[in-house]
Order: sequence, then structure tokens, then C-alpha cells
Amino acid sequence: MELPQLCPRFERAIDLLSKRWTTLIVYRLLDGPQRFIDIEHSLPNLSGKVLSDRLRELESEGVIQRNVYPEKPVRIEYTLTEKGRALAPLMDDIQQWATCWVELD
Amino acid sequence: MELPQLCPRFERAIDLLSKRWTTLIVYRLLDGPQRFIDIEHSLPNLSGKVLSDRLRELESEGVIQRNVYPEKPVRIEYTLTEKGRALAPLMDDIQQWATCWVELD
Repeated sequence: MELPQLCPRFERAIDLLSKRWTTLIVYRLLDGPQRFIDIEHSLPNLSGKVLSDRLRELESEGVIQRNVYPEKPVRIEYTLTEKGRALAPLMDDIQQWATCWVELD
Repeated sequence: MELPQLCPRFERAIDLLSKRWTTLIVYRLLDGPQRFIDIEHSLPNLSGKVLSDRLRELESEGVIQRNVYPEKPVRIEYTLTEKGRALAPLMDDIQQWATCWVELD
């Protein structure tokens, strides 16, 4: 059976979302703006280096925004853009599927 | 801000779905049972070795089923289980998000 070609937008979305940690970082930001250290602490096995790379990628994809507040000490927060918040239904789907179907050892 | 612990089922689901190719393989099987070679041809950059590993993982997670038909030559097909078909709404949401938000270079 010959399958149709994949939609390149779909493939690109999967490429982005399939990167380890990316989805969990977006999920964390659904709770509101977070500082680097908050995200880092909330995802125990994620290294600072990888978090930094993922945040940069998500920013360049327009999924998150990095806000710098010129306070002393300077405050930097990450927040979802409209594109990022549009991922909320997808997170709900994963949560629902996990609740119904995923068994823990 | 202290974030709550992640739901372990959610984390496990993300672990599974974030593996490169896994989601695309499930997406392909939404069209119905497929032979190995059909899936392989429909995902051009996926090697036979990786496809074979992913199919084994998805089978052990109960997401797909491997059916062997004792014909000559023997016919082997992969199909989604109920757990696998339950991922359809997630795929729809990814498709919708991609259509609205993903730009191609």
C-alpha cells in the first residue's frame, strides 16, 4: 500500500516537539512565566547546558519569548508566545492518553 | 516559583512519544495495517535498523501489534492497538498546530 507523502509542516512540528525535553519545557511554561532556575529545578534530570540549548531553539522557533527586566539583579523570564500557548490542547491530549493508557512499573 | 512535580505517567508518555520517528510511525499506522516495507518507504530518512527498533519498542509498550499471516510468502503486518488508536486526537492536534503555526523556510 502506497502511503501519501507527509505534510512538511506536520513533519517539521514533529521534529521540533520530538526533541528530548522540549515538550516538558513547554508544559512547564503553561503555568506562566518562569526563570531559568525554576525550570531547571522542576525537571531534575535536565542539565543546565541542555536547557539553555532548548530554550534558545524554542525562542528561535517563536514558541517562547525571553523577557529581560532591568532590575537589580537583572530578572530574566521565559514565557510562551501565542504559538507556544497554542500547544496547550496537545499537552492535554498527552495527559489524557497517559492517564488512560500508561502503566507504571 | 515552585512548580509541582510532574505526573509520572505524563513523563513516561512524553519519554515514549519523544523518541525520534515514534510519532511518525504511529501516524502512518493510523491509515491502517502496514507492512514493514510500506512504513520504511513512506518515511524516507528512516533506516531499516531504527524502524525495526522502534516497532519493537512500540509493540512492547502495547501501542502496536505485529500480526503474522502464515501465507506463502509469510505476510507480516503492523497495526495499532486500542492504546495506539487512542493517540489519534493527539495527531490531529499536532496537525492543526502545524497548519496554523509552522512556517516552512
